[in-house]
Amino acid sequence: MKLASLRDGGRDGTLVAVSRDLQTAVRTADIAPTLQIALENWDQVEEALGLVYSALNEGRADGAFDVDISDLASPLPRALQFLDGSAYLPHVERVRRARGAEMPPSFLTDPLMYQAASDGFLPPAGTIAVASEDYGIDFEAEVGVITGDVPMGATPDSCDRHIRLVCLINDVSLRNLIPVELGKGFGFMQSKPRSALSPVAVTPDELGDAWSGGKINLPLMTHYNGELFGQPECGVDMQFSFPELIAHAAHTRPLSAGTLIGSGTIANQDESRGASCLAERRMLEIIADGAASTPFMSFGDTVRIEMLDGAGNSVFGAIEHIVSRYDGP
Amino acid sequence: MKLASLRDGGRDGTLVAVSRDLQTAVRTADIAPTLQIALENWDQVEEALGLVYSALNEGRADGAFDVDISDLASPLPRALQFLDGSAYLPHVERVRRARGAEMPPSFLTDPLMYQAASDGFLPPAGTIAVASEDYGIDFEAEVGVITGDVPMGATPDSCDRHIRLVCLINDVSLRNLIPVELGKGFGFMQSKPRSALSPVAVTPDELGDAWSGGKINLPLMTHYNGELFGQPECGVDMQFSFPELIAHAAHTRPLSAGTLIGSGTIANQDESRGASCLAERRMLEIIADGAASTPFMSFGDTVRIEMLDGAGNSVFGAIEHIVSRYDGP
Repeated sequence: MKLASLRDGGRDGTLVAVSRDLQTAVRTADIAPTLQIALENWDQVEEALGLVYSALNEGRADGAFDVDISDLASPLPRALQFLDGSAYLPHVERVRRARGAEMPPSFLTDPLMYQAASDGFLPPAGTIAVASEDYGIDFEAEVGVITGDVPMGATPDSCDRHIRLVCLINDVSLRNLIPVELGKGFGFMQSKPRSALSPVAVTPDELGDAWSGGKINLPLMTHYNGELFGQPECGVDMQFSFPELIAHAAHTRPLSAGTLIGSGTIANQDESRGASCLAERRMLEIIADGAASTPFMSFGDTVRIEMLDGAGNSVFGAIEHIVSRYDGP
Repeated sequence: MKLASLRDGGRDGTLVAVSRDLQTAVRTADIAPTLQIALENWDQVEEALGLVYSALNEGRADGAFDVDISDLASPLPRALQFLDGSAYLPHVERVRRARGAEMPPSFLTDPLMYQAASDGFLPPAGTIAVASEDYGIDFEAEVGVITGDVPMGATPDSCDRHIRLVCLINDVSLRNLIPVELGKGFGFMQSKPRSALSPVAVTPDELGDAWSGGKINLPLMTHYNGELFGQPECGVDMQFSFPELIAHAAHTRPLSAGTLIGSGTIANQDESRGASCLAERRMLEIIADGAASTPFMSFGDTVRIEMLDGAGNSVFGAIEHIVSRYDGP
């Protein structure tokens, strides 16, 4: 099942089912008006949504219409919680090396995770407005899962069944603000503004065999200014599976339905797969050449993040962003 | 105006106006069913809510009933965002000293703030369930403001008008988990489980002259196991006002209506005012005696957090918690 939210209909958007080929959609207001409400009542709505989705794929859904990505908000236009892990240790190791820090061995067993902004997500297609290029504007291509209600103390073994949906994330980062924020010890705050999700979120079964062990075994493709920038394998070098990340998040508190858990920037030890953020490419340049030659994003630069299945079809639709200047309130 | 949420009515509760003396309440479903919806539509609902509040105080509100604090959720039973500052530098300085860290001079000009859990708040009266006393269970008595929509880049001067409501917070902390989490550099995560708000949230005008300069000029009283533990002045030693904290939070992103901004633990340089958390009392014991004699909370320990106005009346009602053992999912 593939679900999305139209921008209209209020702050939570309007829930629609989207066909597997991402071409058509149908409103599901009679089942659940918003994705958040669907997630809060999943056991009651899942079957009905599945029937609509089947009808849509078979061309027999009443009220089906052609989807225009520009009409879509993020599937959750806002969420109660976004906990972003950093499960790909090649990324962690390189980014830390870039700021002169080593990776402690405990990172192999104790997941990195921070509480990120979730009060609003950017639309999957559109602008990232930033006040200054001096902030060191960067993208981070990630995958994420959206959970149902998770009880406090849930074990990793039990967390697979709390995963409702899978999506892509562009975790927008302001690299030059990170050192000061992390230096204060309280997390990223100003250095991580609003992120965006992929046009659609999908149930794990949509991934078929590519979903196994609580990981996605497909590459995540990033294009930067129209050129292929990276396509690391999401199933490789992910130190902690999504169920493990969920259990980590729920260790001392329950998680509410609609919680987004991010994987962290996808990165492989195999450098030939390219990178999923500029910071990492810059680090590789420093290692090779002694200095970074790739600048951070300028106004007008574009990024496209997409995942294709084994047959070459887009699973989630593409995140497509252009950076623009924010002129103030 | 004093507003609260009944626990019944769904995940966002049911909005009620509460009388100034905290004795009676009336449902406001015909104006806004939940506080979140009221905050999203403040300009449209403020006047009507005010009329109901006046009628309630004058004993002429239809449907008024006696309030039982145990029927109340936190005014926002869940929120899209909780950004907790740490504006009282005596607290920051002492807690950092307790873990062997100094306070950098930049903390005088650059606010400390972290993104905290907001997907659910504990009720104002009831239990704090924790799996182990070994976590170092602690309370933190704070004040907070709930904002309307705040545009990205809003200046401190403009942020006073985005403050909709004021409340108290018990920011539950697990002290023995903090060193590991902060050591990873990504914030508190597992060491800060769910917090709770006071029974009612109030518009700033309810504070009269005690609200000035974006600060509350009243002491915040904490009782621990029935004994007065601290009553520091909230208007003293607050390095950053609420408008300044809001502007800090909104520097690189907009804030959605319903954002909770916390002050951080109230603390004064004047040690005779007592403390608002156990960690701070323990630090003062270490300075005086070479070792901490006050343990962290055990199962069965209670904390009460309340603010009285100049006439000795409770402004927000009391947060009253007892720590209990969490037996697992």
